[in-house]
Amino acid sequence: MQIGMVGLGRMGGNMSERLRAAGHEVVGFDNDPAKSDVADLKALVDALAAPRAVWVMVPHGSPTTATVHALAELLSPGDVVIDGGNSRWTDDLEHANHLGDRGIGFVDVGVSGGVWGRTNGYALMVGGADPDVERLMPIFTALKPEGEFGFVHAGGVGAGHFTKMVHNGIEYGLMQAYAEGYELLAASDVVTDVPAVIKSWRKGTVIQSWLLDLLDRALEADDDLSELRGYAQDSGEGRWTVEAAINHAVPLPVITAALFARFGSRQDDSPAMKVIAALRNQFGGHAVTS
Amino acid sequence: MQIGMVGLGRMGGNMSERLRAAGHEVVGFDNDPAKSDVADLKALVDALAAPRAVWVMVPHGSPTTATVHALAELLSPGDVVIDGGNSRWTDDLEHANHLGDRGIGFVDVGVSGGVWGRTNGYALMVGGADPDVERLMPIFTALKPEGEFGFVHAGGVGAGHFTKMVHNGIEYGLMQAYAEGYELLAASDVVTDVPAVIKSWRKGTVIQSWLLDLLDRALEADDDLSELRGYAQDSGEGRWTVEAAINHAVPLPVITAALFARFGSRQDDSPAMKVIAALRNQFGGHAVTS
Amino acid sequence: MQIGMVGLGRMGGNMSERLRAAGHEVVGFDNDPAKSDVADLKALVDALAAPRAVWVMVPHGSPTTATVHALAELLSPGDVVIDGGNSRWTDDLEHANHLGDRGIGFVDVGVSGGVWGRTNGYALMVGGADPDVERLMPIFTALKPEGEFGFVHAGGVGAGHFTKMVHNGIEYGLMQAYAEGYELLAASDVVTDVPAVIKSWRKGTVIQSWLLDLLDRALEADDDLSELRGYAQDSGEGRWTVEAAINHAVPLPVITAALFARFGSRQDDSPAMKVIAALRNQFGGHAVTS
Amino acid sequence: MQIGMVGLGRMGGNMSERLRAAGHEVVGFDNDPAKSDVADLKALVDALAAPRAVWVMVPHGSPTTATVHALAELLSPGDVVIDGGNSRWTDDLEHANHLGDRGIGFVDVGVSGGVWGRTNGYALMVGGADPDVERLMPIFTALKPEGEFGFVHAGGVGAGHFTKMVHNGIEYGLMQAYAEGYELLAASDVVTDVPAVIKSWRKGTVIQSWLLDLLDRALEADDDLSELRGYAQDSGEGRWTVEAAINHAVPLPVITAALFARFGSRQDDSPAMKVIAALRNQFGGHAVTS
Repeated sequence: MQIGMVGLGRMGGNMSERLRAAGHEVVGFDNDPAKSDVADLKALVDALAAPRAVWVMVPHGSPTTATVHALAELLSPGDVVIDGGNSRWTDDLEHANHLGDRGIGFVDVGVSGGVWGRTNGYALMVGGADPDVERLMPIFTALKPEGEFGFVHAGGVGAGHFTKMVHNGIEYGLMQAYAEGYELLAASDVVTDVPAVIKSWRKGTVIQSWLLDLLDRALEADDDLSELRGYAQDSGEGRWTVEAAINHAVPLPVITAALFARFGSRQDDSPAMKVIAALRNQFGGHAVTS
Repeated sequence: MQIGMVGLGRMGGNMSERLRAAGHEVVGFDNDPAKSDVADLKALVDALAAPRAVWVMVPHGSPTTATVHALAELLSPGDVVIDGGNSRWTDDLEHANHLGDRGIGFVDVGVSGGVWGRTNGYALMVGGADPDVERLMPIFTALKPEGEFGFVHAGGVGAGHFTKMVHNGIEYGLMQAYAEGYELLAASDVVTDVPAVIKSWRKGTVIQSWLLDLLDRALEADDDLSELRGYAQDSGEGRWTVEAAINHAVPLPVITAALFARFGSRQDDSPAMKVIAALRNQFGGHAVTS
Repeated sequence: MQIGMVGLGRMGGNMSERLRAAGHEVVGFDNDPAKSDVADLKALVDALAAPRAVWVMVPHGSPTTATVHALAELLSPGDVVIDGGNSRWTDDLEHANHLGDRGIGFVDVGVSGGVWGRTNGYALMVGGADPDVERLMPIFTALKPEGEFGFVHAGGVGAGHFTKMVHNGIEYGLMQAYAEGYELLAASDVVTDVPAVIKSWRKGTVIQSWLLDLLDRALEADDDLSELRGYAQDSGEGRWTVEAAINHAVPLPVITAALFARFGSRQDDSPAMKVIAALRNQFGGHAVTS
Repeated sequence: MQIGMVGLGRMGGNMSERLRAAGHEVVGFDNDPAKSDVADLKALVDALAAPRAVWVMVPHGSPTTATVHALAELLSPGDVVIDGGNSRWTDDLEHANHLGDRGIGFVDVGVSGGVWGRTNGYALMVGGADPDVERLMPIFTALKPEGEFGFVHAGGVGAGHFTKMVHNGIEYGLMQAYAEGYELLAASDVVTDVPAVIKSWRKGTVIQSWLLDLLDRALEADDDLSELRGYAQDSGEGRWTVEAAINHAVPLPVITAALFARFGSRQDDSPAMKVIAALRNQFGGHAVTS
């Protein structure tokens, strides 16, 4: 089928290629004219036959909201907008209302797969009304991995990004679990070949996973990770996961610890630990490092 | 090659069958005469040709130590004992010394795979001297999964069980990460089909893993886990992992949180939370549930 | 000086009495006519001479916002509203803008002290413009404890409630630290008189505090806390503290752990721990409690 | 009464002075001859009239064990040894047995108070048999703070150090709670005078404590703690507290988080966070800081 794609960066560009390879017609627009098939959003809308489907794949927050609002002015009743970016699920409800007032449908899609998705397929977590989702199934089928997994219609509007948010929260916890185990192995004298341990775990163990495969891959290139700093960004979903948990009074010790470990990794010096040092100095005359 | 197997429970029994299927000769002994090939440990030793290899697969702690000490009296210089149970790595050093004084070798093997190992192979994490490990390679090769993964000679005596201990610590963290994500999905109104979400994640996502496959399998049988209580034992390795981390001053927030979650799951009522309730009552006249 | 007090519950009522005891004139209004000096908010405003000061001491959220909005219609330019409730600091900014549009000032006050405040004084954490705060100093002086401590003008509008929020977050952490220590003492066989330990710690130790005094007091009445359930509510500030920390990328492991312990105390059965039990069953055939 | 004091460092020296000020006769020995009243341990024992009491105040571990063993050879049945150092409570059991075989009593005392103890008194947490403890009460009375608090006979041998260990674990949690609150205040724009907030909290609040007084004192000297590094040692009791909790299956999330925060503060770069960075790079092509 025919689809418009707004945002042709690493994700949007690769997804467009996967769609075209599956026989779909993709009309792409990006702020970079060199990547675009059309001059602007209006031209993109004009190039599509009604009822249109436009997939938005731009940074979350203001860029996504601006794109959705612009499309609301250009599209027609019966058209549908898909937000495949990393939007917060609460934004989806606002976007769906804004478009719904004009008779335009809205579907949110959490997309996983990173740079590997173009080849292996993208896992899709979808929220929206049944008719909207059904109509887009040819697109979803082309993007998802082969087989019975990698796609879910998780609920109404917002459910796609909520699901992706939780996915990323879990991802934080998984990564930190491996990271802690690695650090303990590296700290021990008794284990003499840590990269070989990681590699061996890839099959037959309870902890085998795709992330473990990637860790092995990273250690093949840099066997003690000496070329990296222990510094990690967080992309938003981890924070939102903890906030959602607080809202539902769900204890989330592991995922939160993983988030805080990232926060801590970005501090040159910790104000909290200065307080600890100050207090130790006050009550005990403990030597402090200054 | 020929090997003695002491302990023919679920693990030792299945491993014996996998070894026999690969053409090895296994002489088994178990406290249950119905499972045993021989009447006692002495008969087991007598049935093996020197230099002998005896694999011990009994509960860790006193049973393993008692077996190792008994074998020390029965075996001859040049023989080797393999401890494939869930021993603490610090026990390995004592066992190796005790046997070494009599010229008997010792190899420790952390074994992963559970009930799936007989078919898929057991991941083996091995500690010991090079000659001992090399000599046992036919056995290890038969037990491990096919392919390049699932076996590591991680270091000297103790390295096998240390590696397996860290493996299990990571396992605790991974399981808790999935568990927390599941609970948050279940608490949300926006996601209406949690089992379908879990199933979809099995391919194309960053969090795909064998544990996730198992969670999908569990939900196929009981789609809201209503037949289970939220009660989890811990088997020792999680505790030892945290203790090792404390010994090395390695922060382990995620793995420790996972361990504490299990402790908490086994409490009918928390003395600590009684203190919180008591204090809230004292300073604020807050209503408390009694 | 003269002040209006809206909300004459446990906090507002006791504060009014402390103010009157210090020679101030308090005109009180409550939804309960039996407690009120006047029939309604309009009568309260009419009973005060301009420039008026009205202290709002009602539940946070909708009740506070409704009261502030009602006062905005009744008060005159130059008057000032004080929110002494447990409002989220972000609400303060909205309330200040709403009143400011009408020329009415706004001061937010975080109040600590609970049932003990009437006698010992209330610790006050104040946010607002200098002239507004200065004008209210006679009121603050009457409410605060004697001496140099117990009052801070922490910054502009919102700073009072932000400070109180962090105070409560710290309180969560302190309470949980004592609670964990108590539980460990109680679990040990070697310590035979836990209440005596708690009592002894009240002087000469590094951990002496008012909360510890209260714990001793609670144990005097119920020496093993057997009359309480380990069930603890949370009042909002703990959640907001963690959310503020996430917003500032500040790691808050202790305060968050204390919050999650409260969440956990309110669960009859943990969905997350059901997942752990299910996974253990899947991979190991571990016995599970059902 | 008469007492021998072994170890005249900051703690032992100050305690001796407090004892002498109360009218007791202290015979002191230290490896530093300039501090000693006698030439060696034998001379110390000879200078005391039977039944003797010798207080050991030396570093825990080997120095304490060596001193106890030396005293075991020098003392007579009916004498008593007091270990007032920071020994692990499990060492007490061994020391008591070693001395008991020779008819010598043993009492363990956890001592809190730091540099403030000489003036304010030392909180004492005592383990041992009733007759031994009763006999030493004049010494304990002289050392403890005035009033009803600051002394507990917590149980048999080991109970004193176990209690002190838990005290220090709680101390870790309390300090970290204040430290986190401080960091959040400092990170916020809305609060403009953090030291004034800390000072104000010293009275009327739920979180008033001696540690808070000390934090105010530290901020008076260095109002943003800029002269300190966020680097904190740990002295052993925190680790032992977590190990004891693991042994009793008691969840200790706050105290453990506080311990791990100290571990983390001493790392220049975190191996675990290198793994996080490596994985992010692998799956997402996320920019990493190298």
